[in-house]
Amino acid sequence: MTEDSEDDNTVYIGSKTAMSYVHAVVTQFNEGQETVHIKARGKAISRAVDVTEFIRNRFVEEAEVENVEIGTDQIQTDEDGELNVSSIQIDLTK
Amino acid sequence: MTEDSEDDNTVYIGSKTAMSYVHAVVTQFNEGQETVHIKARGKAISRAVDVTEFIRNRFVEEAEVENVEIGTDQIQTDEDGELNVSSIQIDLTK
Repeated sequence: MTEDSEDDNTVYIGSKTAMSYVHAVVTQFNEGQETVHIKARGKAISRAVDVTEFIRNRFVEEAEVENVEIGTDQIQTDEDGELNVSSIQIDLTK
Repeated sequence: MTEDSEDDNTVYIGSKTAMSYVHAVVTQFNEGQETVHIKARGKAISRAVDVTEFIRNRFVEEAEVENVEIGTDQIQTDEDGELNVSSIQIDLTK
């Protein structure tokens, strides 16, 4: 999984501008998805909230936040260690 | 309101280390609060999730995330402008 891959109705937030992810989510809705899952880890969590708020306030005003889950993911580091990183999943429906 | 003031059972996450806010939240629970509201804006949102996860996984293992709200706050800038900034409120109960 790359940080900003998109499959099905999930958009992974990485280090691009918020607007590029806004575009990805709006495209999912325009293609007929009723729910889009916005996922992020670490410092990108703030950007995931920005993306959600941009969409709700400006681009898809009927969109609603259905659920927000926070958690911790274990990621593998290069030197066979494990690192804990915070995560968020925001479910947005229209 | 300063960025990291604490009153009642609310802890505002600012730019200090996550551990200093973990300490503030744990203190609230130890003083008898059943719910602590963890609030943050902008880039500090990621740190608010880190603080919550540290507490749940290491310090107060019976703590549960009861609700997560995201939103947009208008803040006043120096040059009489308004700026929109994303916000989060995490309600943690034990």
